[in-house]
Amino acid sequence: MEQIKVFLSEADMPRKWYNIQADMPTPLDPPIHPATGKPATPEQMHAIFPMSLLEQEMSPQRFWDIPQEVLDIYALWRPTPLMRAKRLEAALKTPAHIYFKNESVSPAGSHKPNTAVAQAYYNKKEGIKRLATETGAGQWGSALSLACNFFGLACTVYMVRVSYDQKPFRKSMVQAWGATIYPSPSDKTEAGRRFLAQDPGCPGTLGMAITEAVEDAATHDDTNYSLGSVLNHVCLHQSIIGEEALKQMAVLGEWPDVVIGCIGGGSNFAGISFPYVREKIAGRKVRILAVEPASCPTVTKGPYAYDYGDTGGMAPIIKMHTLGHTFVPPGIHAGGLRYHGMAPLVSRLKEDGLIEAVAYPQLTCFEAGVLFARTEGIIPAPETTHAIKGAVDEAIRAREEGKERVILFNLSGHGHFDMAAYDAFLGGQLKDYEYPQKLVDEALTHLPKVGAAS
Amino acid sequence: MEQIKVFLSEADMPRKWYNIQADMPTPLDPPIHPATGKPATPEQMHAIFPMSLLEQEMSPQRFWDIPQEVLDIYALWRPTPLMRAKRLEAALKTPAHIYFKNESVSPAGSHKPNTAVAQAYYNKKEGIKRLATETGAGQWGSALSLACNFFGLACTVYMVRVSYDQKPFRKSMVQAWGATIYPSPSDKTEAGRRFLAQDPGCPGTLGMAITEAVEDAATHDDTNYSLGSVLNHVCLHQSIIGEEALKQMAVLGEWPDVVIGCIGGGSNFAGISFPYVREKIAGRKVRILAVEPASCPTVTKGPYAYDYGDTGGMAPIIKMHTLGHTFVPPGIHAGGLRYHGMAPLVSRLKEDGLIEAVAYPQLTCFEAGVLFARTEGIIPAPETTHAIKGAVDEAIRAREEGKERVILFNLSGHGHFDMAAYDAFLGGQLKDYEYPQKLVDEALTHLPKVGAAS
Repeated sequence: MEQIKVFLSEADMPRKWYNIQADMPTPLDPPIHPATGKPATPEQMHAIFPMSLLEQEMSPQRFWDIPQEVLDIYALWRPTPLMRAKRLEAALKTPAHIYFKNESVSPAGSHKPNTAVAQAYYNKKEGIKRLATETGAGQWGSALSLACNFFGLACTVYMVRVSYDQKPFRKSMVQAWGATIYPSPSDKTEAGRRFLAQDPGCPGTLGMAITEAVEDAATHDDTNYSLGSVLNHVCLHQSIIGEEALKQMAVLGEWPDVVIGCIGGGSNFAGISFPYVREKIAGRKVRILAVEPASCPTVTKGPYAYDYGDTGGMAPIIKMHTLGHTFVPPGIHAGGLRYHGMAPLVSRLKEDGLIEAVAYPQLTCFEAGVLFARTEGIIPAPETTHAIKGAVDEAIRAREEGKERVILFNLSGHGHFDMAAYDAFLGGQLKDYEYPQKLVDEALTHLPKVGAAS
Repeated sequence: MEQIKVFLSEADMPRKWYNIQADMPTPLDPPIHPATGKPATPEQMHAIFPMSLLEQEMSPQRFWDIPQEVLDIYALWRPTPLMRAKRLEAALKTPAHIYFKNESVSPAGSHKPNTAVAQAYYNKKEGIKRLATETGAGQWGSALSLACNFFGLACTVYMVRVSYDQKPFRKSMVQAWGATIYPSPSDKTEAGRRFLAQDPGCPGTLGMAITEAVEDAATHDDTNYSLGSVLNHVCLHQSIIGEEALKQMAVLGEWPDVVIGCIGGGSNFAGISFPYVREKIAGRKVRILAVEPASCPTVTKGPYAYDYGDTGGMAPIIKMHTLGHTFVPPGIHAGGLRYHGMAPLVSRLKEDGLIEAVAYPQLTCFEAGVLFARTEGIIPAPETTHAIKGAVDEAIRAREEGKERVILFNLSGHGHFDMAAYDAFLGGQLKDYEYPQKLVDEALTHLPKVGAAS
């Protein structure tokens, strides 16, 4: 029987996270404190983050030992399988080999627990009793509640009210793992009460939910804030995906011509690709492809500039590809990709020509997602369909060129909690959005003064 | 790092299904045709089943080669991992080793595709173009649509209307895999139209949905009927679970003192346990424990008698543990365990003292399910929480007796589409039901005359 899956045993699980800051040709520009306009110090950020994560955030150290306590939790679902999508290949009549790393097997259903577990561990170690965070569709909120549960930390999740009402089962999952969840805006924070006073029926935004979670953390000594993407330490923790993939592809004697991931804040893409970027910098040939939604095309259309990480302008100002922190993307179903900015590490690598990016509208991505579900069985998350679409197009190109090609993409999550999106797609009720050029142009006039667009 | 997972490669996947009929001390009594009152012949049943499945149903052949086409599909998620629940052990402070076979990793989220894929294959091979089936909560309907999709068969699912309306996402899953789904009663069958004429707002029952699916199959030459549990060939196909577990436990050098599964129609329990029953008959020491809901305690309270497989009295009359085919169990959330009868093979083995059974009310099962979710991460299906409760009690007993004990249970499915049940439990809105003795007594007066209660 031909092998289509590669498992690694716990014994073969990578023991170190990889930090791309050690190898990238151009260092990052420093984050700027929103109040002082000067580079933010670890001490300033320590109000809401533990020192160990801030060290990882700022350090050029190449490898970080994964603590045993974190490995023990990872072992509940890691190493994740590497799988060959032979039935998808057959459907596409392509000579390409299509592999995917199946991150959907985590209990929360995505790659998010890779960093959630690490963040919970370091916060716990520094005496923190509770973590506060925001969540949109609920992928991150559920991952952090899972992680906090494992380490005996309390967890408070501010979930955008419209999602809280429309997608009740992510909320249920958060509660099943013992966390507390409030629809945002809530009456639990000053900011929330202010938003509600302005508009009692306010549906909420991710920006408002971030503001509530940050306020919660900043006003409680025993509480820190936790972010599920964008930051350097998040990309560091996610590198386990790519480190495993390197080992698994080696078992098969395969080397990818192209490595693909979808990008919203950049974390799952960073996870699968940064170890390959390291190999590329060291001289091996590999293309690295990020796929984003055409209605929120941060990397393909946004300038590389200093901007706020959040809508309210409370978070540090960071140099990244951005569509402007006041930009509100159209309501596509891939909620995890609706972010105005991009991880500074991903942004910098794009500037340096080490990675490529492409943008697709959502209908063609759902089409690829349904093709994947009907060939490989797994129903992917709407975000993940973007990576699949990227892989499908690479495979079709290989067929047209009559070339063998090895494609590796990250199956970042399953769509079990996103079936309403499939309903809308299969029922013909989904539409594509025109790129909101005017909204972006307007938002870009609000960039802070510290840095200019490159 | 201590090993807590055992994967097998595709190369080590079992190549044969095991048929317990070859080894059981007492043969099954024959199924009786509901119209003639005489043993049903394969020819009579051929109207809605393919001959190859009827052969498997009736045969004493010990092993059946799994067709390569079926193995190829199994390989998308099989062999499934065997996992040790070390964090659950720690929470219970038990010296017991608790292992579980993780069947929730299939694309449909349960063990059901093991037989769905086999049934789709044999029907396709015999020229059938479409399968019709019923589904309650949707686990079986989604598994069969996945399987039909793989073999290019059309699939029609009659889903109990109240579930269709209340659990829309199983319906979406069925559609994502390309099947057609109707709420039952529907206007697509004579029986459905009759039910609707009697009660236009009829919420439907599983019995009505079976009647519709059987009528659909019986009235279309190119269409067969497919059942997801109870029948011998279903138990045969599910045996791959136990055959894998035998190999995986051997890798660890462990032998289970007790093997546990939940029972509704009996298929996942049969799957994990029948290969162990074979070893038990051959002289090895092992307890086999079936766990059922206290509000539908088919094996622990029902007589072993001839009864109809369906509510409408159209299906063959089979010898089994039954609460009476007109019995409507209370509305517990483990919808897959709400069946009046039990697989004849499971029933016979219980009579012969080879397996034990125990019944639990739902609240204590959900409690065990939440404990499992908070220690091991995976949120189990409500049905599966019964097996977990059985394992937890065995582990506690081991602690109290100060004995080592090796426990193996089947994690038959995840609860991603059952989060409303967890909401109700965590919100304190779930209740236990008293055993409906009067309803059962009444239903047992309607047993057909062919066989008497033993």
